[in-house]
Amino acid sequence: MKYSIFGESHGPAIGVVLEGVPPGLALDLDAVRFDLARRAPGKNALSTPRREGDEPRVLSGLFEGRTTGAPLCAVIENTDTRSGDYERTKDLARPGHADYAARMRYQGFNDYRGGGHFSGRLTAPLVFAGGVAKQLLAQKNIYVGAHISTVYGVNDDALEDWESLRACAAKDFPVLSDEKGAEMQQAILEAKNEQDSVGGAIECAVFGLPAGLGEPDFGRNAEGIFSQYLFAVPAVKAVAFGAGTAFALMRGSEANDPLYMDGGVVRAEQNCAGGINGGITNGMPLVFEATLRPTPSIARQQFTVDLAKGENAVLELKGRHDPCVIHRAVPVIEAAAALAACELLGI
Amino acid sequence: MKYSIFGESHGPAIGVVLEGVPPGLALDLDAVRFDLARRAPGKNALSTPRREGDEPRVLSGLFEGRTTGAPLCAVIENTDTRSGDYERTKDLARPGHADYAARMRYQGFNDYRGGGHFSGRLTAPLVFAGGVAKQLLAQKNIYVGAHISTVYGVNDDALEDWESLRACAAKDFPVLSDEKGAEMQQAILEAKNEQDSVGGAIECAVFGLPAGLGEPDFGRNAEGIFSQYLFAVPAVKAVAFGAGTAFALMRGSEANDPLYMDGGVVRAEQNCAGGINGGITNGMPLVFEATLRPTPSIARQQFTVDLAKGENAVLELKGRHDPCVIHRAVPVIEAAAALAACELLGI
Amino acid sequence: MKYSIFGESHGPAIGVVLEGVPPGLALDLDAVRFDLARRAPGKNALSTPRREGDEPRVLSGLFEGRTTGAPLCAVIENTDTRSGDYERTKDLARPGHADYAARMRYQGFNDYRGGGHFSGRLTAPLVFAGGVAKQLLAQKNIYVGAHISTVYGVNDDALEDWESLRACAAKDFPVLSDEKGAEMQQAILEAKNEQDSVGGAIECAVFGLPAGLGEPDFGRNAEGIFSQYLFAVPAVKAVAFGAGTAFALMRGSEANDPLYMDGGVVRAEQNCAGGINGGITNGMPLVFEATLRPTPSIARQQFTVDLAKGENAVLELKGRHDPCVIHRAVPVIEAAAALAACELLGI
Amino acid sequence: MKYSIFGESHGPAIGVVLEGVPPGLALDLDAVRFDLARRAPGKNALSTPRREGDEPRVLSGLFEGRTTGAPLCAVIENTDTRSGDYERTKDLARPGHADYAARMRYQGFNDYRGGGHFSGRLTAPLVFAGGVAKQLLAQKNIYVGAHISTVYGVNDDALEDWESLRACAAKDFPVLSDEKGAEMQQAILEAKNEQDSVGGAIECAVFGLPAGLGEPDFGRNAEGIFSQYLFAVPAVKAVAFGAGTAFALMRGSEANDPLYMDGGVVRAEQNCAGGINGGITNGMPLVFEATLRPTPSIARQQFTVDLAKGENAVLELKGRHDPCVIHRAVPVIEAAAALAACELLGI
Repeated sequence: MKYSIFGESHGPAIGVVLEGVPPGLALDLDAVRFDLARRAPGKNALSTPRREGDEPRVLSGLFEGRTTGAPLCAVIENTDTRSGDYERTKDLARPGHADYAARMRYQGFNDYRGGGHFSGRLTAPLVFAGGVAKQLLAQKNIYVGAHISTVYGVNDDALEDWESLRACAAKDFPVLSDEKGAEMQQAILEAKNEQDSVGGAIECAVFGLPAGLGEPDFGRNAEGIFSQYLFAVPAVKAVAFGAGTAFALMRGSEANDPLYMDGGVVRAEQNCAGGINGGITNGMPLVFEATLRPTPSIARQQFTVDLAKGENAVLELKGRHDPCVIHRAVPVIEAAAALAACELLGI
Repeated sequence: MKYSIFGESHGPAIGVVLEGVPPGLALDLDAVRFDLARRAPGKNALSTPRREGDEPRVLSGLFEGRTTGAPLCAVIENTDTRSGDYERTKDLARPGHADYAARMRYQGFNDYRGGGHFSGRLTAPLVFAGGVAKQLLAQKNIYVGAHISTVYGVNDDALEDWESLRACAAKDFPVLSDEKGAEMQQAILEAKNEQDSVGGAIECAVFGLPAGLGEPDFGRNAEGIFSQYLFAVPAVKAVAFGAGTAFALMRGSEANDPLYMDGGVVRAEQNCAGGINGGITNGMPLVFEATLRPTPSIARQQFTVDLAKGENAVLELKGRHDPCVIHRAVPVIEAAAALAACELLGI
Repeated sequence: MKYSIFGESHGPAIGVVLEGVPPGLALDLDAVRFDLARRAPGKNALSTPRREGDEPRVLSGLFEGRTTGAPLCAVIENTDTRSGDYERTKDLARPGHADYAARMRYQGFNDYRGGGHFSGRLTAPLVFAGGVAKQLLAQKNIYVGAHISTVYGVNDDALEDWESLRACAAKDFPVLSDEKGAEMQQAILEAKNEQDSVGGAIECAVFGLPAGLGEPDFGRNAEGIFSQYLFAVPAVKAVAFGAGTAFALMRGSEANDPLYMDGGVVRAEQNCAGGINGGITNGMPLVFEATLRPTPSIARQQFTVDLAKGENAVLELKGRHDPCVIHRAVPVIEAAAALAACELLGI
Repeated sequence: MKYSIFGESHGPAIGVVLEGVPPGLALDLDAVRFDLARRAPGKNALSTPRREGDEPRVLSGLFEGRTTGAPLCAVIENTDTRSGDYERTKDLARPGHADYAARMRYQGFNDYRGGGHFSGRLTAPLVFAGGVAKQLLAQKNIYVGAHISTVYGVNDDALEDWESLRACAAKDFPVLSDEKGAEMQQAILEAKNEQDSVGGAIECAVFGLPAGLGEPDFGRNAEGIFSQYLFAVPAVKAVAFGAGTAFALMRGSEANDPLYMDGGVVRAEQNCAGGINGGITNGMPLVFEATLRPTPSIARQQFTVDLAKGENAVLELKGRHDPCVIHRAVPVIEAAAALAACELLGI
């Protein structure tokens, strides 16, 4: 299954084509809409007030409610666009954004309105694709879940099991510990009040993957496959599996998870490896953490350059911006993980 | 340029095929040998005493000292193999190793001797491929360098510039601060004395990449491309660009590197983004950190399972093992980065 | 540039996503519409009376009339669908069609109405993609043209130059010799009167490709690249470069085109090789012929099987069918060739 | 399974890396050697007297006689090279060869000795790879066979069944009708006596492929997959499936193979489609014909250009050349077909 996302924030529509969808899946569009709603802006004070229906229209690959096996295309029209916001500052490269890099890459022809193709809005079709992937995984009793593990240094509780993550999916602010979640939201609102934003991290797990998927080599390595999907999510800057960066503080005797037999199945005591050894799944939950940079659009005055004039400049952004995207990003990370898991399974 | 690594630790030979090498490169084999020697075992008390000449024999793609443009194959014969070491424990899954995952993936047909295709020895052909890549990059004034940033919690100094990394390449223990390096080596030797091993991290930078390489989308994203190469290096469990996991502790106003004009070139004050915005290079040095798990082969008694019997078991490894691979992994990470940079450049 | 076609004949819409379009192309949508009109049905007695506006709506990748470099998606709504035609015979595998193969591939979930995703209608988005490719090629003075070389054994005149192909593009029935074209049309109408259809062949040339594109090896071979695009066109069953199948009747002394210098450029006297030697372009026009099978949908009674019952059956097709698709396929073959040429050029 | 061929005619060695080989195959190296011997030169008056042992050395991916699942590399050393033959004429582009195209592609750095990487000798590692593929197919009761269908206009009998092709494999000159074969050999020897060469065609069939493999779309289309492998074989200039170019002479009522039930299986009466409809296998034998151009190396005087001087020139080749490669190409076409069949099966 390959996905191809298209669209710009202020163009006619955004969407996705999924090639290689297995035929016969009775696609539950309500489940997909549920994830789209989790990602949607405008829910509360933590998010941009932009409101989009985000209703996907399936153009192909679905017949009598089931996937046909032919490419599946879903389109979401853009309706609530206010492009005027962006015209005024179009030559001022927003720090932390891709404006300058994109101008170099696309020779200035990229659609700059609302970030164009770089907009976080493009994660909606990714969530759609991930929704299809999740339903394919569920047929094999494989489940993907995620929670906010950190916001601006405030950490959520440690992940214990699938059920706790399932509960997270129903929350507006998906954390294991609502107490910690309240602290995180406090940090977000403080940043918002100071015309600032915050970064964070999301921990995600795939439960039920069989052992023996992936290979050590380039291109077929389980960690490599997951990371490629994850870094395609805007704002992700770090990806760590299992104990992750803590491995740099550990000894082999700590990191080498003892193995034991559990009713005929080999299991690891701590799952330090995050479900992957040598690029191959080991049957334990596949666990990783993705770190997201703070939203770069902030209302504060910032120093930057005017790309048209080639001069230093001062930027004051207007428009509608999120002080934190981390809670909206949870279903996006799940979507990327679900698509990666499908690739690993050869779906 | 695509690379394809083959071989097993105790098979006849290991090697690599590089497809798509640009024609006309006067390949400096001594420079490649230098990197192979940096990676080679047996240099000091920190490494396994296994000694291999690691002399690559180029079978194709080189004519009168220059690359022809046809696939380049280099082979390194295995000479110093002592397979008997492994026969005794072949059914005991070594914790932290891929033994169990590999048995599931390859249905028990994988060559288990010395880790077979999973052996760290397979990084030698990767270093060869990276050596070719480095020389192609040098033609464009692009340079790759790396240093050990952490060993078992001991951190090296912060990276300042290319020259300091160039100096690292000549060191047996490649750190910026030799004082910190001594502390790290002390930590390694302590672990060794306790029949244990330690993990660490390597920071790597690519200098001279032009702005405008990569794309935001899946498969063409700069971070995604680098991470795929990096996770194909054995033991790498986390990859972080720029400020990396510290983004989760930051506000937008800190993370949003102000931009300024520097002699007609747009530059970022701090390079928090690690040279990449929106999946596209921004002309600043591309900087990332890769975390490596502790060497899983340790001489201590470990609890595990006997895969043939399906029973819990106790493992005591003999053989030759590294208490730390981090110093030997520096040229390997550089090689992966050089290959990734070539892909980004369309070489 | 990669294309991804989606849609079914009787679904909501068909379309294409083009990834990797170079930024800055001032897309001439009228030129694309011109090719779509050449492909469109309903023009004359030779074609199915189904009428579709075939008006493409560009959803993304175009901003202020120019390509942005982000994925370009174009959608064509389906309007004139009469699905009832197909319900009656849905279990009767139409001979020559993919009905049985598709049922096996898609486990019966494929959309059978009007051939679903297998419909010739899906060549409309391919023509759109090819139209973009042609405009990119024209920027480099590269042109693609084609003519009907054979219909039911009636051959067109031999191809001489680019200008004669350019003239073909304006014709309803694109042949070099209108006299031969009249004979061909006679053969088509005779077949139509007998409730039958006819096959044919299209000769296509790409003018202006530089020498030195492609490689001998699998995956990068010029003939391999072209053939992959061509066989993705429905009904194509043979692809031959240069002298093609006539090579089996030739001696080396005939086939070995003498070379000569022509104002500093190496040229071949006859271009037997069709512009490709060893998988690499040689600077001569790239010439190939694609053979298309007769339209399988014919109104005659045919023997077949009922796939639901697993019994022999007799089929009498109703619906709207072409007695020949060869004239409508000319812009489709051009589109496939234009996309292949772009791949060869690294566009 | 991906293959990667390396080497040059007069370099140290040639070889192949096969990635993705399923583990556990008890590789029958004698069967591989048998195919290598069928391809080898020097057997009789029809071939070049160059003699190579063509003994493959397996460097990796094989352990205790079985494939491990890790990349399999086989190397064949070059021993009988006489490079001096080529030095004298290295700037004279041999008509029909890739000399000029290669010089443009590789900027003159390609190894010109004996055609370098373009040499027909590189088909030896392809036959090795195909030999592995054949053994994997045989595990699924799938068989590949081929015969010479035409040499210089002399046609072999029509293909009837698998058993007749199996018999061909044992013949020095693999035809169904030895009488026709004698005529063909006569045509070859006549050409040889006149310092010339001849072209021909090979018909190949894959028996036992299940229905339902492949897809209509680009990149996954059965004909597209096969053609890509076939055009990577040197000298192949046309590929035709089923009735092939004869479709241009047919009516739908002839081409539309009636279907019928045969003991619960859907079968086509004539297999005009060559086992593929809509890019998907239909369960009938997959049949195609590949046309090979005459060997371009002929001893006759030929007009050409001197690439160093940029002048017209006259070429008289010395060295060892085949007046016909068609009989030696039979196992090569089989190898390409076997690899394509594996890709189609997802092996």
